[in-house]
Amino acid sequence: MLQFDVTHALPFLPANWLSSRLDGLTEARRLLEDGSGLGGEFTGWVDLPRSYDREEVQRVLQTARIIRRQSQALVVIGIGGSYLGARALLELLTSPNYNLLCGTSPQVFFTGNNLSSDALTELLDYLRDKDFSVNVVSKSGTTTEPAIAFLLFRQLLEEKYGREGARDRIFATTDREEGTLRALANQEGYATFSIPRDIGGRYSVLTPAGLLPLAVAGVDIRGILDGARSAMTALRRPGQENPAWQYAAARNALYAQGKNIELLAGYEPHLRAFGEWWKQLFGESEGKDGQGVFPASVEFTTDLHSMGQYIQEGARDLFETVVRFTVPQSSCLLDPHPEDPSGLGYLRGRDLRFVNEQARRGTALAHAAGGVPNLLLTAGERTPFWAGQLVYFFQYACGLSGYLSGVNPFNQPGVEAYKANMFALLGKPGWEARRQALLAGQTPKG
Amino acid sequence: MLQFDVTHALPFLPANWLSSRLDGLTEARRLLEDGSGLGGEFTGWVDLPRSYDREEVQRVLQTARIIRRQSQALVVIGIGGSYLGARALLELLTSPNYNLLCGTSPQVFFTGNNLSSDALTELLDYLRDKDFSVNVVSKSGTTTEPAIAFLLFRQLLEEKYGREGARDRIFATTDREEGTLRALANQEGYATFSIPRDIGGRYSVLTPAGLLPLAVAGVDIRGILDGARSAMTALRRPGQENPAWQYAAARNALYAQGKNIELLAGYEPHLRAFGEWWKQLFGESEGKDGQGVFPASVEFTTDLHSMGQYIQEGARDLFETVVRFTVPQSSCLLDPHPEDPSGLGYLRGRDLRFVNEQARRGTALAHAAGGVPNLLLTAGERTPFWAGQLVYFFQYACGLSGYLSGVNPFNQPGVEAYKANMFALLGKPGWEARRQALLAGQTPKG
Repeated sequence: MLQFDVTHALPFLPANWLSSRLDGLTEARRLLEDGSGLGGEFTGWVDLPRSYDREEVQRVLQTARIIRRQSQALVVIGIGGSYLGARALLELLTSPNYNLLCGTSPQVFFTGNNLSSDALTELLDYLRDKDFSVNVVSKSGTTTEPAIAFLLFRQLLEEKYGREGARDRIFATTDREEGTLRALANQEGYATFSIPRDIGGRYSVLTPAGLLPLAVAGVDIRGILDGARSAMTALRRPGQENPAWQYAAARNALYAQGKNIELLAGYEPHLRAFGEWWKQLFGESEGKDGQGVFPASVEFTTDLHSMGQYIQEGARDLFETVVRFTVPQSSCLLDPHPEDPSGLGYLRGRDLRFVNEQARRGTALAHAAGGVPNLLLTAGERTPFWAGQLVYFFQYACGLSGYLSGVNPFNQPGVEAYKANMFALLGKPGWEARRQALLAGQTPKG
Repeated sequence: MLQFDVTHALPFLPANWLSSRLDGLTEARRLLEDGSGLGGEFTGWVDLPRSYDREEVQRVLQTARIIRRQSQALVVIGIGGSYLGARALLELLTSPNYNLLCGTSPQVFFTGNNLSSDALTELLDYLRDKDFSVNVVSKSGTTTEPAIAFLLFRQLLEEKYGREGARDRIFATTDREEGTLRALANQEGYATFSIPRDIGGRYSVLTPAGLLPLAVAGVDIRGILDGARSAMTALRRPGQENPAWQYAAARNALYAQGKNIELLAGYEPHLRAFGEWWKQLFGESEGKDGQGVFPASVEFTTDLHSMGQYIQEGARDLFETVVRFTVPQSSCLLDPHPEDPSGLGYLRGRDLRFVNEQARRGTALAHAAGGVPNLLLTAGERTPFWAGQLVYFFQYACGLSGYLSGVNPFNQPGVEAYKANMFALLGKPGWEARRQALLAGQTPKG
């Protein structure tokens, strides 16, 4: 099981940081268990690692084999929770350079998450003479960014393979019954997978939204689900030994002390995309009602030479949560000349993993001494099983933490504001009144 | 010239936000001009776009041609300012997917910026059967991360090409006279380029540290320097019309209002690495003495579906600075069926660039209405000339802003703390006393 270590945050916490929150955590747990809290209609992820549809996962694996046979690339069209989880685990479990290193596995491209004509044109051009498939991931099918990308890539598929051929290369992950994408998929006969209605985007990585792209890349998705189930079993047990309770309580207590920025830090580049997933999970769950810890992420030791100065000596409103793996996949023995001119001679015979671990220990001590509390989450190997544990840990801790801080951790009302203005400015039918207001220099709230 | 627009921040600023800072800006400008301020020995970048060594730039271009002929890949070894600028402009001016799309140009890999055995092993394996060259970038040559990577890649080059052959594939960018890397380069006969002693890492992108990798990728580095010179001429002119004065004053005034997090935002994925460069520039320059705006970056519209909720409705201590290009490189006409099931019909005949621009406008209005001041910096095209302007703009504004806030914008004393602990824990000779202290559970400050 994951280990949570609060040692380097204790000097910043009152003695009762955990005990004073046990009642709140007990209540938060109950709300997650029985779905009776704010947003309780979106707590389907809590039991998912036990109750998921085995048959559908079987079909995900079969479909992945088909895509791997017929395609040099998979284009995943989705925004926010419809791609961040898949991308996070893809980079964590393969490499940030997956598309260069994937060999005979299909490349995986994440698109439909912006409105950049340069980015879309670039990818369309790259794929024009390649065999590819599309996985469009959207609950509704009407979100502008993925809808536009789906339009463009569907047109390219139809040019290349004809309308019939394109149908065999489009895979839709969407609601089981409702929505535009579901209707279109039924009409066109696309193969489909479902995102359960009681699971929101940022909690959906263990549904086919995350699992299909991962399976196409050859990642062991059953291992991920096994890891999540193992974490679920441990973390739903109440009590102050529970690492998710500790994490939720510690970040809550640090926020109460004025530490209003949390940095998720890792010592492997493979965690960079995971940091983006984590930022959505916590930022979108807790950043509302004028409050919430601001989530940022850093990659160490890399960013110790960019953000390190600020962390060590800037405004003292930060805390850090470090994700650590005890066993890297590769060994890399250092063999400098004893008189190495760069002064590395003393590292002769050391493995690089040892050096990286001392950097981590030294940084935790330096940051804590500089006034930055450090939390540490330790996993075993960088494998699907441990990745699944990490996903469930952060999801569960986020649910607890959101209820502890009194918000609805499962809505995101603020995401509509830019869309409303954009629709009005684009002249979308139905938004005429807002358009008039904006053009008159007024800005309606919300 | 770049346009700076403060419209959507004005409601958050006192009327005298600029006028009350004109004296301070006049003084900050003087300190930058005559190098008499804190850290004045590191202001060589101020005049660099005019005074740079033409002959050396000529040699950078010649060397780039040699590397392009002899190599399928260039490995850039450097950490912090020794790679972030090159990476920022490479991704901005080509693509975040450069290594997939580069065709007959060499791939460019940035390494030596972490201690991950998995990441280093992965790259060593990838390059084993490719022709590659190395550009090692370090003022001193003793920083642990690049020194270890240089050891490993030099060993691989010597295996592949012999010691003589390896010499022709190693290019060192370092101090003109001093330091371990300079001594090694002289001894081994590597081709070398210099980082002027009066320019620190985070201000070094317009030196060969940034220019050589960019030239290898085929980027027009003279265009970048021309753009920087153009910005320099405009921005060194004093006065309240000066966009760098306005930016420095506005962020300073917003910080005084309690807006202690700044988000650099762009609407092109090509700006993502630029955000990392910007974070080092401002975070390392201003994050000291227990103060400083915390720098973060976001990519829109992508992150409107992850960080967007927080920005719209979370704690109100944020402001945003948006970098915008008026003309994207590609046109992408939308041609949905009038009855498009996703509801895109109203966009028929529109260019995607128009949609992206309305998203930007709508977001600025939404965020300002939600309590997040918006600053806007507008460039023309995404070209070397405009990229050079952006670099100089932010460097110059950062120098002004640092002096306005009373810090030394050119040192980074806090970066040493983790290194000291790491050396002690690794058992490096000379760090025995600190090692004893750490093992006894004490943590020396600084």
